[in-house]
Amino acid sequence: MSDPTRTLAEIGEFPMIQAFFAPLQVASAAGVVTGIGDDAAVLAVPRTQHLLATVDAMVEGVHFASDADPFLLGQKALRVNLSDIAAMGGQPAWYLLSLALPGATPEAWLAEFVRGLGVAGEAFGVRIAGGNTTAAPAGRSIHVTMFGLVSQARALTRAGALVGDRILVSGTIGDAALGLAVRQGRLVVEDEADRVFLASRFDLPEPRVGLGVAVSDAAAVHALIDVSDGLVADLGHLCQASGVGAQVDVAKIPLSEAARRLLAQDAGLLPLLLTGGEDYELICTAAEGALEMLHTLARQAGVALTEIGVITEAPGVVMLADGQPVRLEQGGWRHF
Amino acid sequence: MSDPTRTLAEIGEFPMIQAFFAPLQVASAAGVVTGIGDDAAVLAVPRTQHLLATVDAMVEGVHFASDADPFLLGQKALRVNLSDIAAMGGQPAWYLLSLALPGATPEAWLAEFVRGLGVAGEAFGVRIAGGNTTAAPAGRSIHVTMFGLVSQARALTRAGALVGDRILVSGTIGDAALGLAVRQGRLVVEDEADRVFLASRFDLPEPRVGLGVAVSDAAAVHALIDVSDGLVADLGHLCQASGVGAQVDVAKIPLSEAARRLLAQDAGLLPLLLTGGEDYELICTAAEGALEMLHTLARQAGVALTEIGVITEAPGVVMLADGQPVRLEQGGWRHF
Repeated sequence: MSDPTRTLAEIGEFPMIQAFFAPLQVASAAGVVTGIGDDAAVLAVPRTQHLLATVDAMVEGVHFASDADPFLLGQKALRVNLSDIAAMGGQPAWYLLSLALPGATPEAWLAEFVRGLGVAGEAFGVRIAGGNTTAAPAGRSIHVTMFGLVSQARALTRAGALVGDRILVSGTIGDAALGLAVRQGRLVVEDEADRVFLASRFDLPEPRVGLGVAVSDAAAVHALIDVSDGLVADLGHLCQASGVGAQVDVAKIPLSEAARRLLAQDAGLLPLLLTGGEDYELICTAAEGALEMLHTLARQAGVALTEIGVITEAPGVVMLADGQPVRLEQGGWRHF
Repeated sequence: MSDPTRTLAEIGEFPMIQAFFAPLQVASAAGVVTGIGDDAAVLAVPRTQHLLATVDAMVEGVHFASDADPFLLGQKALRVNLSDIAAMGGQPAWYLLSLALPGATPEAWLAEFVRGLGVAGEAFGVRIAGGNTTAAPAGRSIHVTMFGLVSQARALTRAGALVGDRILVSGTIGDAALGLAVRQGRLVVEDEADRVFLASRFDLPEPRVGLGVAVSDAAAVHALIDVSDGLVADLGHLCQASGVGAQVDVAKIPLSEAARRLLAQDAGLLPLLLTGGEDYELICTAAEGALEMLHTLARQAGVALTEIGVITEAPGVVMLADGQPVRLEQGGWRHF
């Protein structure tokens, strides 16, 4: 496997699996009774646990450009799915990979992509358990099925928010939308450090796994969701599932220093920040009495948790600036 | 959701999920604690069982033509994955669906595809537990992650074949390869009934779920695999995983009446029959003493099981015709 200019069509499917995917099966991950190379993976779910399962796709021309760095893509493919496990309060466990790649894809692309999978898998303690590779007429696509484990009755859904709950969000919001705009040349950022920071927030989102597990263990929150479609849209999903509404104080929404600097130059960026997708931060709701414990858990998990609003009886998400409702032009990331 | 000429881009992702995918969640399937509509599915695996998980893809232009019937595609997408669960001796349980569809896809296409999922899901007792839908620049692709359950230590892998084992195969071999050739206009079949039969073997493969569960329960076989890449290639995979070889008597390989008639007209079709993919029959190996029980189990499962050869110490798959080795030009379905 030494000629990086060889194409996948020249290598063939089974040598590809042996050379690239089988080595990803590190011995340390528990629970894989039978991994890559059989008709299905055999997995052992501990008897006190429920299984979490989620699938997400990254499609060339939709989620990434044809010249996107495959090392970053491999990492991101796992990270966005890990965020869904975090959003249930689960501990990541295993994943399946379904790849559709043009036969002309060079071996070097796959090698870098697999290196990214390995780095992210090691960082978050998840092991590949199986997958599938197929040819595609044009354009690469990456479908990852991610598994997690959570104590029975401890999974945190979107559906538990109660009227009066405080709404909190982790990290900072809007960086990934700015990063994508930078990557696509739609936004010019003079400061190089800001530019690199924002692009990296798009390329390498940080799934809040530690925080998700901590709030599940502590039974401290009522509802949990991750921000993949944008803050407004995903808070809307949480409210709809819970049969409630939300009021958010726009001034309280946590922004990075880079985002603040850009917003100071162009206040028109605000809707993009609040509705742009791919933040992969967590939104949770909790009773006021739980806030102190939540802030402690967040500190221990190494991430800020910021109170941004309150759950209301009236449906819908109302964004307040200086106490007045504001209308945002975009409703969140649209897949179609 | 009443205008079948509307496109997916006009409907939007969340209304699409509500209208098409949420109704697939029939109430009868056990074990789904949280299904479609949250960040991840929450699934309860019974404590005596192991989880089986497999993913497979169907890509337009590779696995199906752009004008393929979406009702059949929906069924086939589940059936090919159910075959992988059958090939581990497992009972099908749930599935996740990851779809990438061009925004211009008409609503009618999705409605028919989902109807196919529903029919196959009901026929085999599997329930959708979640999924993802994304836009694609061109060409539809369908990735299904299928879950099954199997008693602990009863999963049947490819790796248990022993020297001296008899090799058996279910149903008939080669029909799907002929059916694909018919569909693609590469093979003319005069007899209409034969033509319909062969095409249906390609369009609607029959996963041997009942047989797989029966041989797992009875602990009657040493190794099990399904024929997706072709009889010769998949028997080769079983041998490689088991560290053995195989001798197959070509004359014993079970063929349908339709395939026999075509072979009588053109003996040159034999390599296609033996190496063509997508049969989705099961190959198993077992001690001679287990054969009678296996035939009884197969009768009860409503499928024939035919002895075609023997496991050998010498590696490789040798096909014998009149006692002499024959060379086949094709080595099985190549994905690249």
